[in-house]
Amino acid sequence: MALAYDPLFITSDKSLSAFDVASSPPQPMNLTQDELKRIAAYKAVEFVESGMVLGLGTGSTAKHAVDRIGELLRQGKLENIVGIPTSKKTQEQALSLGIPLSDLDAHPVIDLSIDGADEVDPYLNLVKGRGGSLLREKMIEGASKKFVVIVDESKMVKHIGGSKLALPVEIVPFCWKFTAEKLRSLLEGYGCEANLRLGEKGKAFVTDNGNYIVDMHVEEDMGDLGAVSDAILRLPGVVEHGMFLDMASTVIIAGELGVKIKNKH
Amino acid sequence: MALAYDPLFITSDKSLSAFDVASSPPQPMNLTQDELKRIAAYKAVEFVESGMVLGLGTGSTAKHAVDRIGELLRQGKLENIVGIPTSKKTQEQALSLGIPLSDLDAHPVIDLSIDGADEVDPYLNLVKGRGGSLLREKMIEGASKKFVVIVDESKMVKHIGGSKLALPVEIVPFCWKFTAEKLRSLLEGYGCEANLRLGEKGKAFVTDNGNYIVDMHVEEDMGDLGAVSDAILRLPGVVEHGMFLDMASTVIIAGELGVKIKNKH
Repeated sequence: MALAYDPLFITSDKSLSAFDVASSPPQPMNLTQDELKRIAAYKAVEFVESGMVLGLGTGSTAKHAVDRIGELLRQGKLENIVGIPTSKKTQEQALSLGIPLSDLDAHPVIDLSIDGADEVDPYLNLVKGRGGSLLREKMIEGASKKFVVIVDESKMVKHIGGSKLALPVEIVPFCWKFTAEKLRSLLEGYGCEANLRLGEKGKAFVTDNGNYIVDMHVEEDMGDLGAVSDAILRLPGVVEHGMFLDMASTVIIAGELGVKIKNKH
Repeated sequence: MALAYDPLFITSDKSLSAFDVASSPPQPMNLTQDELKRIAAYKAVEFVESGMVLGLGTGSTAKHAVDRIGELLRQGKLENIVGIPTSKKTQEQALSLGIPLSDLDAHPVIDLSIDGADEVDPYLNLVKGRGGSLLREKMIEGASKKFVVIVDESKMVKHIGGSKLALPVEIVPFCWKFTAEKLRSLLEGYGCEANLRLGEKGKAFVTDNGNYIVDMHVEEDMGDLGAVSDAILRLPGVVEHGMFLDMASTVIIAGELGVKIKNKH
């Protein structure tokens, strides 16, 4: 835990110029993936100031950030925070930590959102939604003045889909097979497979909005992601997809050799 | 009822060349709007052939078409029809008429869909969804080799929004006020108001997919409808909208002076 405050390890990068690495010679450390996630999360919480409306992310990395915000509130180091949770799960976590909560209807503009990501490409485009909360995350993070993404270095990819893990798409349950096949067919040229996400007892996983998730496994670089995004959204059964294009303002990457911070130009 | 078979009234337009009107001198007839709807519906059912997979529309005009298909099945004039209903309501109607039903998962390609519309512009772009079934209608009608639209002449407009009635947008219930405001703001330049559709007891109307409808009242011509469509679909809380662009293959228009048929070029 103390790692997050080790000045030799964390770059003290107040100006967040562009792409900073630790200035002292890097020493590889034996850290678990979860420790790296916590380091990135704690670094992100340094951006939080008293009085802010905060978008609270979902997933194993964001959970550390929410924990840390709760801790700083208890210690009196933060005050007058309003949290906007991106999922029912995060809502429960935040409530248990005593973080005051509200929603987008009451706070349509959010000062800062902090959340993890499943993939980050060199242009800071993201894939999110392996936790299943992509729609609420996109609404809340899209309404944020600043959106700080926290990842361990394993999430950095050369292109979206590069991790060979899924690009999730939220679809309506009505005739989901039809929509899944339309999605597969749309991205067939990139070597795409589309699989319904399963939850408990082999039944379809259901999102907080009552929808299903189709996990698209894309082999190759899709090129113009904006065009791919529009084509996916035009399919009538599609509610939202997990590509977050041009949304992240800052990405904090925790790795064995230190913390890197990348900002949108 | 016999009106639909009056050769002086209905254009016998087997070639469906472009824009045909009754060849005999038109005689204005005193018909109710519902009678006009039925005339258009019966004309559309003439396109139905035994063995077809049929998309069955929703609403007061489409209801006449479904009734007529049931009648022809009972009379043995049609056989081996499979109906794909666009709403729970149409499903119930079709079941009560003994029309065999299936869905898009089992029949991803539909031979012919017949449905009403709330507005039809000169390019055969439609507004649909005042009945609340726009999402399922768009999925099914978009999967149809031929999509025949049936309207009375009051539905013809110079531009989408021209009737001053609503352009419906289906949105997720989560923070619907936020999404409604984003929609209003997006189309503000066209004099748009956005209102949540209410159902029974003043509560929000809920679609078959568990979502809400925001009715957008647009005053002015929106110009490039494809661009407006993409912009609406990019809002994360939006599931689907009621503009059906470049989807209708034929529009059958019943008016006081006869039936007109317009085909997509």
